[in-house]
Amino acid sequence: MSHGKHFTLFTASIWPNGWKVIFVLRELGLDFEPIYLDLMKNEQKSPEHVTHNPNGRIPTLIDHKNDDFVVWESCAIMTYLVEKYDTSHTISVSDAGEKILQLQWLFFQASGQGPYFGQAGWFSMFHPEKLPSAIERYQKETLRVFGVLEGVLSQQAWLVGGKCTIADFAFIPWNIYALENYISHYNGFDFARDFPAVHRQASSDMVA
Amino acid sequence: MSHGKHFTLFTASIWPNGWKVIFVLRELGLDFEPIYLDLMKNEQKSPEHVTHNPNGRIPTLIDHKNDDFVVWESCAIMTYLVEKYDTSHTISVSDAGEKILQLQWLFFQASGQGPYFGQAGWFSMFHPEKLPSAIERYQKETLRVFGVLEGVLSQQAWLVGGKCTIADFAFIPWNIYALENYISHYNGFDFARDFPAVHRQASSDMVA
Repeated sequence: MSHGKHFTLFTASIWPNGWKVIFVLRELGLDFEPIYLDLMKNEQKSPEHVTHNPNGRIPTLIDHKNDDFVVWESCAIMTYLVEKYDTSHTISVSDAGEKILQLQWLFFQASGQGPYFGQAGWFSMFHPEKLPSAIERYQKETLRVFGVLEGVLSQQAWLVGGKCTIADFAFIPWNIYALENYISHYNGFDFARDFPAVHRQASSDMVA
Repeated sequence: MSHGKHFTLFTASIWPNGWKVIFVLRELGLDFEPIYLDLMKNEQKSPEHVTHNPNGRIPTLIDHKNDDFVVWESCAIMTYLVEKYDTSHTISVSDAGEKILQLQWLFFQASGQGPYFGQAGWFSMFHPEKLPSAIERYQKETLRVFGVLEGVLSQQAWLVGGKCTIADFAFIPWNIYALENYISHYNGFDFARDFPAVHRQASSDMVA
């Protein structure tokens, strides 16, 4: 790449998984060249992008200061960035046990939040047929996930290590996605009232 | 726990995410007491289990030789087990870059395979209403995921590090779930013919 920056990031402006990585790059003060792909035109499936990422999804990161090392999957990218570049542990934990718990929360986000919130968005906005029972399945699951987070965050300020880490960062873009796209008018839902600790997490200066 | 074994594992016989952890424990020769929860009776939501795992899902592992350290999310458990107990790297990689790629594949499994294959199963077998367009959405996604794996595994025997690792293990239980439950009769599908490299991965002695 000829831009001379530390990283190239293939991302998409409308997609929460790209925001996660941008959060981390900015927090760590790392310079990067974003390449915004148009998901509506399936640019993430282009031969150039698929060469780097056989899954054809965003985000994909190339580290030009590490032999053009390529990594995809947003939570793997976040982990890579903090392991290599957050050596003072400003947004990550250092203890071996806490690192596993940080990873545990990242896997819950990747498997239990993102895909389900994404299905809610799909059936609410894009599915060719209106399927109310499918939409409701994922609206209910969204509230369940908020409930799991609320149960923990009402007892402790952050998910792991007593500070804001990539584990907290990872949930916030998808929470915003849910609020902006499909949950705000569901069954009298009120984020600040119903899930005050999750609301606080998402509104912190650290992640605003 | 009074059973005297190294680990307690909360799991469920019918659920692929529990099998992943059992694969690893067996491969590493670690003794464990499985507690099989009945998902049909929502035993994973019992107060005792939720005390260990606020998400109320299986699997959950307790390591009695590490101060009763608790970890949940199957891919986080797999990573914990190899980092702590696979010091000779028989089913995991050791190089820092390869560890990130191992993690990348685990995140693809956790976010891109498990949830989508699970939705296919849900809409095929459990959803209270028959929604053919929802079932088809996830059948197609299953073939897409098989295609991503085939593209890589037709070029190299294993996903990372030139050997069978937890990255390979992680995909296999959900592949079996798809084959047993909803994909075998879809549109003339033939696993061995259509996806020979993925079929080989799942049939290896190493994982059989």
